[in-house]
Amino acid sequence: MTMALDLAPAAPATGTFHGVGLGPGDPDLVTVRAVKIIERTPVVAFFSKKGRRGHARTIADPWIGPDKVELALPYPMTTETHFGEERYISSLGAFYEESAARIAEELDGGRDVALICEGDPMFYGSFMHLHLRLKDRYPTAVTPGVTGMAGCWAAAGLAMTWGDDVLSVLPGTLDEEALVAGLHGCQATVVMKLGTNFAKVRRAIDRAGLLARATYVERGTMAGQTVVPLADKLDDSAPYFSLILIPGEGRRP
Amino acid sequence: MTMALDLAPAAPATGTFHGVGLGPGDPDLVTVRAVKIIERTPVVAFFSKKGRRGHARTIADPWIGPDKVELALPYPMTTETHFGEERYISSLGAFYEESAARIAEELDGGRDVALICEGDPMFYGSFMHLHLRLKDRYPTAVTPGVTGMAGCWAAAGLAMTWGDDVLSVLPGTLDEEALVAGLHGCQATVVMKLGTNFAKVRRAIDRAGLLARATYVERGTMAGQTVVPLADKLDDSAPYFSLILIPGEGRRP
Repeated sequence: MTMALDLAPAAPATGTFHGVGLGPGDPDLVTVRAVKIIERTPVVAFFSKKGRRGHARTIADPWIGPDKVELALPYPMTTETHFGEERYISSLGAFYEESAARIAEELDGGRDVALICEGDPMFYGSFMHLHLRLKDRYPTAVTPGVTGMAGCWAAAGLAMTWGDDVLSVLPGTLDEEALVAGLHGCQATVVMKLGTNFAKVRRAIDRAGLLARATYVERGTMAGQTVVPLADKLDDSAPYFSLILIPGEGRRP
Repeated sequence: MTMALDLAPAAPATGTFHGVGLGPGDPDLVTVRAVKIIERTPVVAFFSKKGRRGHARTIADPWIGPDKVELALPYPMTTETHFGEERYISSLGAFYEESAARIAEELDGGRDVALICEGDPMFYGSFMHLHLRLKDRYPTAVTPGVTGMAGCWAAAGLAMTWGDDVLSVLPGTLDEEALVAGLHGCQATVVMKLGTNFAKVRRAIDRAGLLARATYVERGTMAGQTVVPLADKLDDSAPYFSLILIPGEGRRP
């Protein structure tokens, strides 16, 4: 009955792609901005392992109502040891392509998508692989989060970097010699990605003469949290959510 | 009139000392837990420069009402160049002692104290100097925060660490040779504490062949934010709230 009704609707603008860091695990360590974005965004996407809900989805549970469209992105393998390196990488590449396409479909429909991530999205985050594929095609925004390592050093009460200390973050996936070399050049160190690399990492820390300064933290800020001097951890099992902290010893006025 | 009135009141338990990270500057990047602690804690303490409100106090403003006891801890000098190294350090030591004593007085009175801090309390934070002095005498808890560097790399849209990248955080206070050496050994790098060190840091990055990969970020997540390729920044002035980011180039399936 009005002129407006006779006009074709304007093509909807594309949605915005949000990478939203959720922090180390405790839902109280989510930022105010992350809560706002999750609450107002119609589509929430998250990586998960097949048959599991996914850790990010669990952290964000308090803010995801029944009206939210959920886009689960299950990794194509259950553990990284199921595949040789080459097949693993090409399989992951195809998975990220497919995931980006599924998110692009929502964005093309004019719906904002929040990809929720443990820790910080730009710090060893799977989000980065979709950011790389989508950032030049859609409005993109990143909400930083408390890193897993910051959650762990707070939980352990370890003051990490003093004065002019250099901090190094070493992935436990490096080979033993690279780890020893990396440990020699720095004052404060975090070793991440332990899992099956744990025994090798402990040997490297021992060889670098740093065993007495190292603390092992498992499930920091979460239920079942363990904080123990590395020298006192005698078994070799370490889950994904574990890391080793070596605080610096710099200037302390 | 009752038996209870005839009994001496029990000695009050001491308060809890909280270190509360507030994130990189945008109040929306404060965590849910930080908000809860600030709201429920009767005393809020913060470092500041003489005659200024202090950056942490400004970030937390939305959650500090008129009934809060505020404990300002003004640094004894306005810039670090006013004092020679030795006098500067002994002056700082006395300042931290005095600040710890003022907080202890509140804790002894049974009042919880939240020392609010920019970024993360355990990552180059002044809080650490009071934590060191108080943690064995009072119940102490640390709430991690989004680091300044994570706020900056999110604001700049830079994905920092890929695959097995090593991340190094270098203070700009290191001498030029140490910076060049540190830059050679790592994949992803953050250089903090620029200020008067800026020209030296840029020279070191240039010498290490990394100028084209470096981004300068000033006041990340705050009003007046600047993000510019380091090669395009031609002047030598850099405020305290600035840093340089060199993203890693690791595995990207």
